[in-house]
Amino acid sequence: MTDSLSEIRDLLEKAHRVLLVSHVMPDGDTLGSALGLAWALRQRGLEVRLSCADTVPKPLRFMPGSQDYALRSRTDEEVIFVIDSSDLERIGHVYDAAAFAAVPVVNIDHHVTNLCFGNINWVEPKAATAELILELVRYLGIPLDARIATCLLTGLVTDTQCFRTHSTTADSLRAAGTLMDAGASLAAIVRAVFNHRSLPMLRLWGQALSNIQCSGGVLWTEISQDMLHRVGADEEASRGLANFLGTLDDAPVSVVLRELKGGLVDVSLRSSADVDVSKVALAFGGGGHAQAAGCLVKGTLAEVREHLLAALRQVLSAREPAGEPLATPKGPSGSL
Amino acid sequence: MTDSLSEIRDLLEKAHRVLLVSHVMPDGDTLGSALGLAWALRQRGLEVRLSCADTVPKPLRFMPGSQDYALRSRTDEEVIFVIDSSDLERIGHVYDAAAFAAVPVVNIDHHVTNLCFGNINWVEPKAATAELILELVRYLGIPLDARIATCLLTGLVTDTQCFRTHSTTADSLRAAGTLMDAGASLAAIVRAVFNHRSLPMLRLWGQALSNIQCSGGVLWTEISQDMLHRVGADEEASRGLANFLGTLDDAPVSVVLRELKGGLVDVSLRSSADVDVSKVALAFGGGGHAQAAGCLVKGTLAEVREHLLAALRQVLSAREPAGEPLATPKGPSGSL
Repeated sequence: MTDSLSEIRDLLEKAHRVLLVSHVMPDGDTLGSALGLAWALRQRGLEVRLSCADTVPKPLRFMPGSQDYALRSRTDEEVIFVIDSSDLERIGHVYDAAAFAAVPVVNIDHHVTNLCFGNINWVEPKAATAELILELVRYLGIPLDARIATCLLTGLVTDTQCFRTHSTTADSLRAAGTLMDAGASLAAIVRAVFNHRSLPMLRLWGQALSNIQCSGGVLWTEISQDMLHRVGADEEASRGLANFLGTLDDAPVSVVLRELKGGLVDVSLRSSADVDVSKVALAFGGGGHAQAAGCLVKGTLAEVREHLLAALRQVLSAREPAGEPLATPKGPSGSL
Repeated sequence: MTDSLSEIRDLLEKAHRVLLVSHVMPDGDTLGSALGLAWALRQRGLEVRLSCADTVPKPLRFMPGSQDYALRSRTDEEVIFVIDSSDLERIGHVYDAAAFAAVPVVNIDHHVTNLCFGNINWVEPKAATAELILELVRYLGIPLDARIATCLLTGLVTDTQCFRTHSTTADSLRAAGTLMDAGASLAAIVRAVFNHRSLPMLRLWGQALSNIQCSGGVLWTEISQDMLHRVGADEEASRGLANFLGTLDDAPVSVVLRELKGGLVDVSLRSSADVDVSKVALAFGGGGHAQAAGCLVKGTLAEVREHLLAALRQVLSAREPAGEPLATPKGPSGSL
């Protein structure tokens, strides 16, 4: 770890232009961590560019510098940082084999499943990658300012669902305190990220919760294009529904199925601590964490639901000891 | 403040038996703060009793010692602590004029509206009274243990909705870190307090959100006894709905009306930062904070709704500058 930090410091001492890459379908941690690091390195006089295969989601555009993701015009960086990504597939079309072979690649991530694809790999199981960036910024002796702090606290707050995940440690809370001291407004971040409600969104959630089904240990609900039209909501309105659903004492698995345009269904899975839904997601071409995973499946809502529920029941029936729920922590543990 | 701390220390040095009182309709802060202080004072060899006019809600019974609230058989205490209560009415029938006149009363609270009814009044605007108790325990030199820490962290987590309220400071986060270090499980508290979902509860919320109404800047929904019966839910199932509803950009006030047995309607009000709903709650015989207040009103759902909406519209139309929403923080700021 300390080795990685000193290696990163040495690299940065010789560099003038760096590229920071966030993963596809970006969340607050991959964006906030990269943006926080960007502001810190700019203080050092470095030219920093940001790249992401997808656009920054609306609720995260309050982060200072988030518009810079659209601006990269040259590709002459001397160091590439890949932030919060377990593997290079996760950065989508930003990955360019020749360019990535030509310069040192620094891989900073908190996912324990990280494939260590970089020339320098700093991978530690923190609640958020933003915690690692905070450590790096302090190690480099760069003073925190409100911009750095706002971006890093956004990473920490989004990946922990505001300190509600199991991954949240005493150090995560103290890091958040440090970031508030440096000028980040926790209240403003919470408002932007969690309290972004609208009447159509509330009505959509109302319908999804009213129609909830529960059988064989699986809780599920669906959001069709028709439902979106009826309440006047867009696809962003169902953000957070899977985490809200969570799991129940007698339903250790929950599923939210969302019908997308083009014959695709987006599936979000959540499970209690004794069930690993990432395997099911993987079998359907997706991935994620053991207790929070997802996949994108071709088919109608009815088709996907049928296949998926069958697979989940198989996983549930294979549990040992059969049928006996464990007295271990449960609930959402990721941001998928 | 330091004066209050040394006065409390002096009182405790001479005392053998103390009574800790929590307020009516107890929440996690009044209970957790009192229980945390109880475990600390017992370490000091004091005999501690606990009292509350109402029973401890089910989701909070995981706190060690919560069953002690039912046990007070004698009334020969030498000091009475009133915890997290703005005034003596707030402790209901536990208040006994003669008994309270006979011994020193210590008033520890974080509500700025506190009437300073004690012989010693330690009132500071912290995110939770639990933060004050942590300060007191440390001042007294009593080492934190897992029981003290669990109760105090529950107070902090419930009053801040897990660090989401405006009142949450960097110090609140650091206090939470200290309590985790001392053995409190944040994940277990979050699970007990926030993730206590059931199928009837999810369906009830579904109906309440589906039926949501919005007009004249007020968002409202109702929960009738009939709805509870239809989904098989009890009254606890609507806990948290008012906080979830929050406010919208074009609806700075939200209302949840719940029909109780016996011709009463329980009203929860939430508002954005530029509207004070506590005045409306007060006018209807209730009270609370500016952005989170409540009242209990006689009448049918339709009658109470009509009177209340009329009063709220009057408050909204009296705002200056008329109709222009302020760019100030908003969202739930209390636990009413």
